[in-house]
Amino acid sequence: MNAESIRNILESVRRGKITADEGVSRLRHLPFEDLGFAKVDHHRALRVGMPEVIFAHGKSATQVREIFFRLAKHGGNVLATRAIADQFKAVKKKIRRAEYRPEARAIILHQDKNIYGKGRIAVVCAGTSDIPVAEEAVVTAELMGNAVERLYDVGVAGIHRLLANRKSLTQARVIIVCAGMEGALPSVVGGLVGVPVIAVPTSIGYGAAFEGLAALLGMMNSCASNVSVVNIDNGFGAGYVASLINRL
Amino acid sequence: MNAESIRNILESVRRGKITADEGVSRLRHLPFEDLGFAKVDHHRALRVGMPEVIFAHGKSATQVREIFFRLAKHGGNVLATRAIADQFKAVKKKIRRAEYRPEARAIILHQDKNIYGKGRIAVVCAGTSDIPVAEEAVVTAELMGNAVERLYDVGVAGIHRLLANRKSLTQARVIIVCAGMEGALPSVVGGLVGVPVIAVPTSIGYGAAFEGLAALLGMMNSCASNVSVVNIDNGFGAGYVASLINRL
Amino acid sequence: MNAESIRNILESVRRGKITADEGVSRLRHLPFEDLGFAKVDHHRALRVGMPEVIFAHGKSATQVREIFFRLAKHGGNVLATRAIADQFKAVKKKIRRAEYRPEARAIILHQDKNIYGKGRIAVVCAGTSDIPVAEEAVVTAELMGNAVERLYDVGVAGIHRLLANRKSLTQARVIIVCAGMEGALPSVVGGLVGVPVIAVPTSIGYGAAFEGLAALLGMMNSCASNVSVVNIDNGFGAGYVASLINRL
Amino acid sequence: MNAESIRNILESVRRGKITADEGVSRLRHLPFEDLGFAKVDHHRALRVGMPEVIFAHGKSATQVREIFFRLAKHGGNVLATRAIADQFKAVKKKIRRAEYRPEARAIILHQDKNIYGKGRIAVVCAGTSDIPVAEEAVVTAELMGNAVERLYDVGVAGIHRLLANRKSLTQARVIIVCAGMEGALPSVVGGLVGVPVIAVPTSIGYGAAFEGLAALLGMMNSCASNVSVVNIDNGFGAGYVASLINRL
Amino acid sequence: MNAESIRNILESVRRGKITADEGVSRLRHLPFEDLGFAKVDHHRALRVGMPEVIFAHGKSATQVREIFFRLAKHGGNVLATRAIADQFKAVKKKIRRAEYRPEARAIILHQDKNIYGKGRIAVVCAGTSDIPVAEEAVVTAELMGNAVERLYDVGVAGIHRLLANRKSLTQARVIIVCAGMEGALPSVVGGLVGVPVIAVPTSIGYGAAFEGLAALLGMMNSCASNVSVVNIDNGFGAGYVASLINRL
Amino acid sequence: MNAESIRNILESVRRGKITADEGVSRLRHLPFEDLGFAKVDHHRALRVGMPEVIFAHGKSATQVREIFFRLAKHGGNVLATRAIADQFKAVKKKIRRAEYRPEARAIILHQDKNIYGKGRIAVVCAGTSDIPVAEEAVVTAELMGNAVERLYDVGVAGIHRLLANRKSLTQARVIIVCAGMEGALPSVVGGLVGVPVIAVPTSIGYGAAFEGLAALLGMMNSCASNVSVVNIDNGFGAGYVASLINRL
Amino acid sequence: MNAESIRNILESVRRGKITADEGVSRLRHLPFEDLGFAKVDHHRALRVGMPEVIFAHGKSATQVREIFFRLAKHGGNVLATRAIADQFKAVKKKIRRAEYRPEARAIILHQDKNIYGKGRIAVVCAGTSDIPVAEEAVVTAELMGNAVERLYDVGVAGIHRLLANRKSLTQARVIIVCAGMEGALPSVVGGLVGVPVIAVPTSIGYGAAFEGLAALLGMMNSCASNVSVVNIDNGFGAGYVASLINRL
Amino acid sequence: MNAESIRNILESVRRGKITADEGVSRLRHLPFEDLGFAKVDHHRALRVGMPEVIFAHGKSATQVREIFFRLAKHGGNVLATRAIADQFKAVKKKIRRAEYRPEARAIILHQDKNIYGKGRIAVVCAGTSDIPVAEEAVVTAELMGNAVERLYDVGVAGIHRLLANRKSLTQARVIIVCAGMEGALPSVVGGLVGVPVIAVPTSIGYGAAFEGLAALLGMMNSCASNVSVVNIDNGFGAGYVASLINRL
Repeated sequence: MNAESIRNILESVRRGKITADEGVSRLRHLPFEDLGFAKVDHHRALRVGMPEVIFAHGKSATQVREIFFRLAKHGGNVLATRAIADQFKAVKKKIRRAEYRPEARAIILHQDKNIYGKGRIAVVCAGTSDIPVAEEAVVTAELMGNAVERLYDVGVAGIHRLLANRKSLTQARVIIVCAGMEGALPSVVGGLVGVPVIAVPTSIGYGAAFEGLAALLGMMNSCASNVSVVNIDNGFGAGYVASLINRL
Repeated sequence: MNAESIRNILESVRRGKITADEGVSRLRHLPFEDLGFAKVDHHRALRVGMPEVIFAHGKSATQVREIFFRLAKHGGNVLATRAIADQFKAVKKKIRRAEYRPEARAIILHQDKNIYGKGRIAVVCAGTSDIPVAEEAVVTAELMGNAVERLYDVGVAGIHRLLANRKSLTQARVIIVCAGMEGALPSVVGGLVGVPVIAVPTSIGYGAAFEGLAALLGMMNSCASNVSVVNIDNGFGAGYVASLINRL
Repeated sequence: MNAESIRNILESVRRGKITADEGVSRLRHLPFEDLGFAKVDHHRALRVGMPEVIFAHGKSATQVREIFFRLAKHGGNVLATRAIADQFKAVKKKIRRAEYRPEARAIILHQDKNIYGKGRIAVVCAGTSDIPVAEEAVVTAELMGNAVERLYDVGVAGIHRLLANRKSLTQARVIIVCAGMEGALPSVVGGLVGVPVIAVPTSIGYGAAFEGLAALLGMMNSCASNVSVVNIDNGFGAGYVASLINRL
Repeated sequence: MNAESIRNILESVRRGKITADEGVSRLRHLPFEDLGFAKVDHHRALRVGMPEVIFAHGKSATQVREIFFRLAKHGGNVLATRAIADQFKAVKKKIRRAEYRPEARAIILHQDKNIYGKGRIAVVCAGTSDIPVAEEAVVTAELMGNAVERLYDVGVAGIHRLLANRKSLTQARVIIVCAGMEGALPSVVGGLVGVPVIAVPTSIGYGAAFEGLAALLGMMNSCASNVSVVNIDNGFGAGYVASLINRL
Repeated sequence: MNAESIRNILESVRRGKITADEGVSRLRHLPFEDLGFAKVDHHRALRVGMPEVIFAHGKSATQVREIFFRLAKHGGNVLATRAIADQFKAVKKKIRRAEYRPEARAIILHQDKNIYGKGRIAVVCAGTSDIPVAEEAVVTAELMGNAVERLYDVGVAGIHRLLANRKSLTQARVIIVCAGMEGALPSVVGGLVGVPVIAVPTSIGYGAAFEGLAALLGMMNSCASNVSVVNIDNGFGAGYVASLINRL
Repeated sequence: MNAESIRNILESVRRGKITADEGVSRLRHLPFEDLGFAKVDHHRALRVGMPEVIFAHGKSATQVREIFFRLAKHGGNVLATRAIADQFKAVKKKIRRAEYRPEARAIILHQDKNIYGKGRIAVVCAGTSDIPVAEEAVVTAELMGNAVERLYDVGVAGIHRLLANRKSLTQARVIIVCAGMEGALPSVVGGLVGVPVIAVPTSIGYGAAFEGLAALLGMMNSCASNVSVVNIDNGFGAGYVASLINRL
Repeated sequence: MNAESIRNILESVRRGKITADEGVSRLRHLPFEDLGFAKVDHHRALRVGMPEVIFAHGKSATQVREIFFRLAKHGGNVLATRAIADQFKAVKKKIRRAEYRPEARAIILHQDKNIYGKGRIAVVCAGTSDIPVAEEAVVTAELMGNAVERLYDVGVAGIHRLLANRKSLTQARVIIVCAGMEGALPSVVGGLVGVPVIAVPTSIGYGAAFEGLAALLGMMNSCASNVSVVNIDNGFGAGYVASLINRL
Repeated sequence: MNAESIRNILESVRRGKITADEGVSRLRHLPFEDLGFAKVDHHRALRVGMPEVIFAHGKSATQVREIFFRLAKHGGNVLATRAIADQFKAVKKKIRRAEYRPEARAIILHQDKNIYGKGRIAVVCAGTSDIPVAEEAVVTAELMGNAVERLYDVGVAGIHRLLANRKSLTQARVIIVCAGMEGALPSVVGGLVGVPVIAVPTSIGYGAAFEGLAALLGMMNSCASNVSVVNIDNGFGAGYVASLINRL
């Protein structure tokens, strides 16, 4: 243990076993993490209610299962994103209570059901094709202890659908907006509310959508001042940022 | 005259001066335009009420003046786009009735005040910085004989401003929408109406706006099916296309 | 019914059951669409003859079948774009009169055979590889009640083929031009006619075609003023815009 | 007043001056904003402590002065971003208490000195060239009623400078990080704290920095999950988003 | 027949069946190609020795076979580029003398073995991976009646290999240079000779090669003045242009 | 002189002053160019009639004058491209017969008026703004001893202007085509003729023209097989390549 | 032999068999490589300890086996990069001592186990997904005779992991840093050490990572002055450059 | 002093003034740099002979003067890059021995003339326009205590100029190669030598050079394995990396 190492050195100094100078010298050669900086503890405190996360894409079913199993032991929630059914099957065999959310492409283990968020997070998406990204945000936010409300298929070309849900929007404490194609929805949502909006460009679209680049650029240039942006298809990141905000 | 050249050849054939075969041969060697294809005449007919247009950018004041003067003689309207005050001064000396529209950066001569458009063209813009492009569209549409209504500063981040003008939008026969930054406005307008929307990305914005590229990509990917797009800052082109549609 | 809800509230006011203030308050809390804005009705009127549309790409055969079936009940035309044979088989089992247009990758149900367009729409394409996109435009325009003429394989490197069809071009009321590679055809067609040209860049080409980007940029910069552009491979959008124009 | 208009109609109904049906009809034709939707009021409430903002770039000194003057009357704070000294001189003549922050390129009027933020906002920047963007964030956050701490010139190539300030970082409630060139700083900061990090790419750099594109892409791909991004050089947007978060 | 149609009209004029004016009118309405412009004939003359070409990529084996068969009847050479073995098998069944050049991905029918080129064409490539593109150029040039010399695997990182072949280079009348990765070879070759160099960027490379973009940009910026460039992987185009030059 | 150096060594060997081995050794240490490789002579032969060229952009008037003066002594033609009036004034003072071609931005000294080209080079441009690039090509070709014909302002949106000049096109031995915006002209010209076409994208256009990128991509993807491309605005390169071809 | 050829000519001159002039002429026509430039020998010397390298990607198992076999005969080390298991099986049959390093995707033959490097090379990577690229660098450096130390999974979002290994970093003579996503790690490492850092962007990431472009741009703009960059995923190149440096 | 602070704490422990636990706690709260990590000292050692560097671009003459003056006091060399004459004048007034290298755009103070580099650094450039970047590399390397040899204007289109200097190249211990346009030179140089080559793309060129992007991509894709790359126009970085290598 870190603090232990330091205390040992200090004890040696105190007992006169080594000089103060030698103590200084030894301290310098301790590995960094052995210094037991507050940051680590602080982080641990902060991480209460944070899920352990696995990016499953490109990992074998066995790898996912083993990592999942190890993390599950910490007692908190576990989330494997970009996971496929085969990976879930492997996990399921070892961790009975693991669940699969196919629309979110996520394997979850919901052990800690406390609510840490102070308000509600609204997750909005423009079209039905954006739902997988939105669901990744939802499942992330839920595993981080938030009440989440979904507002799906409210794209800007049918603005009345969005306006009909304005009440839900104005009652949210943070809003996540997922949209592909022209990525216009965060600007409209941002204009309707006075809370932070996390925009997620999706790779939905074709041709000049350029795999989400059009949506990304659109969101970066939002004329609404309360919008910030995460990576294309990064529902997890949006859920994570929104959860941090909602805990404040 | 074209028809004349052909008639002369035919007359020579008729009078036996040349054989039919010689006639065929001579016809083949007439320059293309001498054949007097219907297209030209047809075009001339079509062009009734079309302004003569000068792209003034990069031309000297003298050049603009001389071209303007020559075109003014045709009796129709004349439009110099991307024109500056000095160019106007030069034109004004020679063509007294020429006017300058500084916000549209246009020199105009409005000789033919007939209305050719069957309905009204609405010109919408997102922010005050987009007005020069919108005004170029307005002046183009007006010189082509259209009733035009302006709806300015109705960007998507304050959607109520746009909705408050929905009546104007739904009464237009064609709509031009100019927007920079994320270029989201055409999608929203497109969803509110059932008429063609001509979208004009503007170079307004900074950073990831990339001189209008973000708006252009956004508009190309519009989730509204009634939107088509012209070049960045091309207010003239939008006014031209809208006028053609409004004449149908 | 919307108007009904409002009338009920007003009736309650009239009968003294509730005060005017209470009426104001209740009106505010009605869902948006219940206010019965003209737009909705107007839209419904406008939509007479509009096909119901499904973007089939990425949907399961079952999903396409179910949505198709539901939309077919409205009595109008139904169009599933980017559809494959398997999706059609599923649809066909439930809706006997559904047809598949393989070259357009479209499943259609042509229930309303009225003609709503006032003139003819010409659909032009540069090479045989552009035909699928052109056919998507054709089938869209036909389902929206238009007479359509095809002019295929008339690319600019053999300009005489195009010129030989000039008569067809000049008789069209709106023209759709699909082209990949350098995307030059809309400029040439635009110069030959005095009507609106809807340009569709296609992803045909290789190397520096960059999946349609070269054609898209070419069309955005068209030197013909009557050209506006839709997304890469978006035959549906072009057919839709052209149909709206042709109805005016 | 909006509610008044509606009440008047309802009163007319109540008094039998008009029928309920006429009332319905009149309500439909009221301009949207006259319906007095909660959103507007709600927004006004929300906007307590929000500065009125002018994007001064490209506006004449007179325009900035006039807009500034009008906004100043509302009694709240006023902020003109991207402002130059000449614009300030003009403003100063009319609004004596206006101040100029040259490093932030901002003209401010600090009338409301209440603190609305619940914690402290740390504004971090990588190099001295990033300071103008960072200062724009600072001045925005201050005018929105936040305690702000600056941590400047702590770029990743001298990681010990950043680590030496870890205490300040861990005590902030929200962190803004401005960086140009490779834009790596937000990832490192994000890894050190458990609060939301708003990343601002700056256009600092040359060559392959491509005016901030390299930093923007870097930040979008941050390996720290608590990072979201605003537009290149958008210090104002970062200050605005951070202030909203800090008010929660 | 075209000339026939015109002659018929002229004969009618000559015989007094129709007036000269009527003749003019009828001529105008003849389809364009019926005018029998010299261009067509001229082209036919020019095309002596030109292969008929099929872009086989994306066509079915049956389609390739049928088109190949039809073109083969013209008696000249036939070339199907980007062809696979299955397509060849189909062709082979119908056209016995057809051959497959796997390294060039080409099916050929070499019926006309005349030499039309005045000198020799050198086809140079940088690495062995560029050979398919180089071979497409070779086979094109051979079918167009040229003597061709191959200089393969002489990339710039082993400049002595190239210099050792300088004699071959200086004896060629036109040179085709295929290179991927940094695309530097055409500049070096261009500096060694005084004849036209046709550069072909290839899609060989990975990472920042961006599918040939790096090579394309490199070649466009060649510091050798005698270099012009065709599309990425366009061996056919290079062979075609070189053959035209070599015929002069 | 090179050959001299080698001969001297050989003479020393012949006279027995040094051994053959010593001769081998000395030869190896001669600077490369002293070996007088055939290439150099060959080049010199080839270079008969080639102008000496200065890229004047960014050089001081004095630098241009001095280089020009030195090159003028060789007795051949001298060409300074991208030159401004002030540079010409400086040159003129020292070389009386130097001329300035403002539209081509070129200073020339036409000392060798022999014709080396075997046919005529046609230089075609799309719009009047492309003329400076076209004129650079013209002046280059003329100084390299070619008969040149100009066909200007024949862009594809007015295809009849181009077709009216088809005779000139079909009589050229090589054709240079300069075009900005969509860069479509080379494809159309390429389809009309059977000779090599050198395409020059120009930086003319705005917005999505991206300083010539749109035209460049368009030309790279030309559907005409006889087109090769040089750098944006590189009239000199096109003139140079065309001259080499015309000498063959 | 080269020198022989030259000596023969000189001997002929010496003996009067040919004149000096004839000698000059003959020398000019010797192929370049016959001049026996030092470079070749020098290179051979330099290459002691260099592995022979095969880029296996896209080659058949048979091709890899044959090339590998031929190179193995030289007695030095052999390295096949981007190799798959099937290729290894083929090689293994013929060269018993060949080994496969799956994580590096490399087939190796380690015949020369001398150490040529003067110090240690540290190979650092940001995340576990970057390991294949890092391992390619490791295996390259090892086959080139270097002591290598791995520091994996020390990305910047957990800066303490990196700092804990600072001792290893400061003891390396050259450092290779592989990172995808934002590519920030080389800047941080560069700031911690005073030795050359070779940065390798990897294609790890998604969305705005654009296949390694984000990391590449980030590394090009590193604020640490001791960083230079190789191509995306080019572990081999990094290992090669680092080995050359470590030999100095 | 750092070590002092730690010793003080340890002394307090030793003397029993505070407990060991209290000592641990206090140590944790010392600012990071107070821990006196070896890295700092080590760095200081390493930095012997390193110049202090100012990036002068965008700084006022006064700012440059003051920073220069402060750094000059350290007794080592000082380098201000991207400096203009006015900045030099200001510096000169205060530091008499400061010199200006206009071609390198650098202000230098050469106080420490020791040679730290073990061999010679060759700085190669392709054209005369690349010289400013090359000279920045030269001046950096010289101030860092290296013998430098310049090889200028040896671009690949005249390969004999480069080959004539091969001896110089093969005698260098590290080589810096600066090139714009197609950026091919590093590949050729890399192939001629067995030492590390640092490539510097320059922004020289026009059109498709895209401000150095073409050269950058070319160099990233170099077919020579011993090439690594720094940012566009980053002569300083290249000189710095080369100096570090040359010290090893």
